[in-house]
Amino acid sequence: MRIALDAMGGDFAPANPVAGVILALREYKDFTVVLVGDEEKVRAEVARHDTRGLEDRISYHHASQVVDMKDSGLDSVRRKKDSSVSRAVDLAKAGEAEAVVSAGHTGALVAAATIKLRTLPGIHRPGLAVVIPTPTHGFLLLDAGANIEASPAHVAGYAIMGSIYVREILGRANPRVGLMSIGTEAGKGNEFTKECYEVLGRTPVNFVGNTEGHALFSNPLDVVVCDGFVGNIVLKTIEGLAKSMSGWIKGELKKSPIRLLGAWLAQGAFLSIKKQTSTDEYGGSPLLGVNGICIKAHGNSSPLAIKNAIRVAREFVTQKVNARIVEAIESSHEKIAAH
Amino acid sequence: MRIALDAMGGDFAPANPVAGVILALREYKDFTVVLVGDEEKVRAEVARHDTRGLEDRISYHHASQVVDMKDSGLDSVRRKKDSSVSRAVDLAKAGEAEAVVSAGHTGALVAAATIKLRTLPGIHRPGLAVVIPTPTHGFLLLDAGANIEASPAHVAGYAIMGSIYVREILGRANPRVGLMSIGTEAGKGNEFTKECYEVLGRTPVNFVGNTEGHALFSNPLDVVVCDGFVGNIVLKTIEGLAKSMSGWIKGELKKSPIRLLGAWLAQGAFLSIKKQTSTDEYGGSPLLGVNGICIKAHGNSSPLAIKNAIRVAREFVTQKVNARIVEAIESSHEKIAAH
Repeated sequence: MRIALDAMGGDFAPANPVAGVILALREYKDFTVVLVGDEEKVRAEVARHDTRGLEDRISYHHASQVVDMKDSGLDSVRRKKDSSVSRAVDLAKAGEAEAVVSAGHTGALVAAATIKLRTLPGIHRPGLAVVIPTPTHGFLLLDAGANIEASPAHVAGYAIMGSIYVREILGRANPRVGLMSIGTEAGKGNEFTKECYEVLGRTPVNFVGNTEGHALFSNPLDVVVCDGFVGNIVLKTIEGLAKSMSGWIKGELKKSPIRLLGAWLAQGAFLSIKKQTSTDEYGGSPLLGVNGICIKAHGNSSPLAIKNAIRVAREFVTQKVNARIVEAIESSHEKIAAH
Repeated sequence: MRIALDAMGGDFAPANPVAGVILALREYKDFTVVLVGDEEKVRAEVARHDTRGLEDRISYHHASQVVDMKDSGLDSVRRKKDSSVSRAVDLAKAGEAEAVVSAGHTGALVAAATIKLRTLPGIHRPGLAVVIPTPTHGFLLLDAGANIEASPAHVAGYAIMGSIYVREILGRANPRVGLMSIGTEAGKGNEFTKECYEVLGRTPVNFVGNTEGHALFSNPLDVVVCDGFVGNIVLKTIEGLAKSMSGWIKGELKKSPIRLLGAWLAQGAFLSIKKQTSTDEYGGSPLLGVNGICIKAHGNSSPLAIKNAIRVAREFVTQKVNARIVEAIESSHEKIAAH
């Protein structure tokens, strides 16, 4: 198995992507990697590590450009044809890599993947699927922002793809799927979610109805579907509030020596939550529905996060997630096609 | 000034509404209250308090019904004509009360207020405005769920009304207004927010552009506008996550005696945050845009929260917030009317 890694993508590239892939190469023996990006810089970064025994599994593919956070996703594909993320996707398209991993610009990965790889049969729009941690278990939120103007049929596709992903990669039987809305009863929501509700009822997933913000964490489901606009707002609100609360608590704890002592004694509690909520552990968000395998790691990915994104990419290949999705879509296509 | 209090609304009614109004009557001398609800029960609750010196300022208005959380807002107005919230709004309509305060069913208050009081001239839909606490200052989120299918003109109205409310009630000059979206650049968002962006640019408010979930807490504005579907999802996601994180931290702190000791030493930090994020302090959410004054207190309001909701209702009257809104809408009406 060969994985194309966007070595220039992310806030700490090429250092963290390179460090992460070396961790992964040591832990998992079943893959080789092609590092895509400015070859000189990437080779220099690799040279900082001890790669004895790994050399045969690392190759390089030069790409002269890097997508900037200011670029629009679509423009980046058109104007920066030699960007590291575009070239990584090109390798997947050419059959030279079975999966792409990138911690770079989300929009650029989505645009490159959608345009170059196109979508799976029966899927019209891909959805970005992000695992959100809760005190009991993580739930998969999709679409987290790949497709801003979604139709109910797209949302039905997310439900099917998300269920298969949770079953195959997170290992949970019969995942419960909810529709993000503003009340739990069937009639609650806007016109769009009411249509989605009806279409979701005809998909082969374990659809349990509407879910709302209060229930996301108190009674977490396995999959929560919504259009990419709402999903992106929910994702960023959660990330923003969690970061703010964490900073707020730290600030208050520093206000007196007694509080600081207390915080030191209680540090195990904070470290435990930090570990449980770390995006490092979940290892990247799959772009579900493209005719290929693209895993988006968080922009601020640590080496551990990159390693786990590569783990997910490997599992995606070995579990044949895309083949399962195509089967499920075919069996439900007539039921949802009209929407 | 006379305030109609829905004495049967909220999770802890009539106990907390009655206890709260008695706190308010003691603190503020400029109002009288009419307690609306099952008169026997409400009188019995009042009798549990020392009301010496307050008797002349308390009157009763019997209402035989209570809106159930399962009722739909609109149905409750049609079918439970004698509900405490409907009767409280009737008093405002008849000019027998200058403001309504309720901790009951949000949808019932919105429906009763919109149908019976109608909207202010130039405003087509009311918006529920909720203060969200952050480490530096609270921002006003609206619409938090009064109007699920909004138009860009409705959102422009929220921006104008929210700015006036923040200026007059929260006392901040030149409030900064942002549009809830999925990226900060002007071109980011869906078709609806792009239209809103354009209309907001023509309103007389200090519109600073799009805001997103990451920025809500790290760089808080004064007013954040969106349609009621998105606003309700954002509000409930924030409430749900904050509650979950708080419970999560408590659970981890209880896992060992050392952690518990640390938590005890650091308790000042947690209490400080609890106080700063308490919905009690902000005192209820105004339903902006109705031709009257309706303050929604949180369903789980404490007596302190009810007292503060009454404080806000009083300030709303004395600051002539609705007259200011009408002036501002008139001056900007032509600019936003086309949308």
